[in-house]
Amino acid sequence: MIREHTIELRVRYDETDPMGLVHHSNYLRYFEIGRTELLRAAGGRYRDMEAAGLLVVVVRVDCRYKAPARYDEMITVTTQITKVTAAKIIHHYVIRRDGQVLVEADVTLAVIDREGRLQRVPEALIEAYQS
Amino acid sequence: MIREHTIELRVRYDETDPMGLVHHSNYLRYFEIGRTELLRAAGGRYRDMEAAGLLVVVVRVDCRYKAPARYDEMITVTTQITKVTAAKIIHHYVIRRDGQVLVEADVTLAVIDREGRLQRVPEALIEAYQS
Amino acid sequence: MIREHTIELRVRYDETDPMGLVHHSNYLRYFEIGRTELLRAAGGRYRDMEAAGLLVVVVRVDCRYKAPARYDEMITVTTQITKVTAAKIIHHYVIRRDGQVLVEADVTLAVIDREGRLQRVPEALIEAYQS
Amino acid sequence: MIREHTIELRVRYDETDPMGLVHHSNYLRYFEIGRTELLRAAGGRYRDMEAAGLLVVVVRVDCRYKAPARYDEMITVTTQITKVTAAKIIHHYVIRRDGQVLVEADVTLAVIDREGRLQRVPEALIEAYQS
Repeated sequence: MIREHTIELRVRYDETDPMGLVHHSNYLRYFEIGRTELLRAAGGRYRDMEAAGLLVVVVRVDCRYKAPARYDEMITVTTQITKVTAAKIIHHYVIRRDGQVLVEADVTLAVIDREGRLQRVPEALIEAYQS
Repeated sequence: MIREHTIELRVRYDETDPMGLVHHSNYLRYFEIGRTELLRAAGGRYRDMEAAGLLVVVVRVDCRYKAPARYDEMITVTTQITKVTAAKIIHHYVIRRDGQVLVEADVTLAVIDREGRLQRVPEALIEAYQS
Repeated sequence: MIREHTIELRVRYDETDPMGLVHHSNYLRYFEIGRTELLRAAGGRYRDMEAAGLLVVVVRVDCRYKAPARYDEMITVTTQITKVTAAKIIHHYVIRRDGQVLVEADVTLAVIDREGRLQRVPEALIEAYQS
Repeated sequence: MIREHTIELRVRYDETDPMGLVHHSNYLRYFEIGRTELLRAAGGRYRDMEAAGLLVVVVRVDCRYKAPARYDEMITVTTQITKVTAAKIIHHYVIRRDGQVLVEADVTLAVIDREGRLQRVPEALIEAYQS
């Protein structure tokens, strides 16, 4: 049972802004990498879902920024599954540098089809997370 | 007294993802454009603040995604000042397409100096918003 | 006959880097906006082509950077059609600020289908540019 | 003497476009990662140069796109030093997937100071590449 996963990333130059800090929007991209790798570690792949016509969309982001990351720094993204139901998937994220918490967030996902209609979270995905 | 401002944007190709939808992180960039233009309409400019050594940073984002925008669509970003104190600035954002609400968010800003120390929100900025 | 088009853009915060300059990759995104608007001015839309299963892809970029644009500056993107054949479309771009040339580029496009096979440039597109 | 370096990257979701392909502008970002890692392998760091007031800017990109990379694919970026003089640094890049060449490019860099004036490429950098 894999419910938590941590990856290490190096901050890229194009991800930082004139303040020399990671642009706040880019942390959402780090979260996306985090949940992709958590799912991969659990034996699944988002691209297989899309190929099957199921689209995973973000319906809510609640993100608290405590301290900034800078260009070329190594950071870790820890992704944790908080809740998986037929209606939604909630992950909790913590981004750290040398153990210091920089950013914390909760992101809620839902599943839609190509016409934008809400779908049940596939059993395979619920199982991948819960098995 | 300007406390609300609406701008119109056309969704760019590079802002959309393989689902054909605006990547969820890009709405945070639209919000940033919204508050920049609200401040400009109020007679201020963020770049003058940075030149003065004051950095405006995002400390919290709470964003609810209701429906997606797609490539080449025209959307509006309405930025509203919710609260301005010496410690923080809170804006409320609503993104719409043809009147339909797509995304709603509250974003909290704070002011720091180049060493990352928290600073008071400058009086000029408080006045620009409240005058 | 529309063979040249100029649009005005304001440089966004997230498009600039720690040097305070527009990240060099973002000019390619400005060019894309330029050719989209040129095509629109000529009565066409890229999104209609994609809906028809035709994908316009970039096969070559030759870009010369002469001077940088900075956050919040107004720039113009002038897009010119250099050549349209059944095999490719070449545009020439000039980005200026207050008349000064900042960036110049030539970008070659080709048309493929969803399987990645090279297709003829559609007659409608050739006509849109040449009519 | 390190004159060539290869890194492996996984294509991120936000780097791909509605065609499901990596947006052509993002390869320039992959090249930047490639040259950063080549320099690191040679014992240097771009961020030390910036801290010393020297800015490395791109003055020319000539990029040929042969086949697209897609979401979640593993690609390699091979960076090679073609030429280092007091006036410029030229790198050659090849991006591959499973050995197949996807993109090839030549990128020319120059060094400026904070006022935008052209500077000599620092001896330390020339040596890092040539030693």
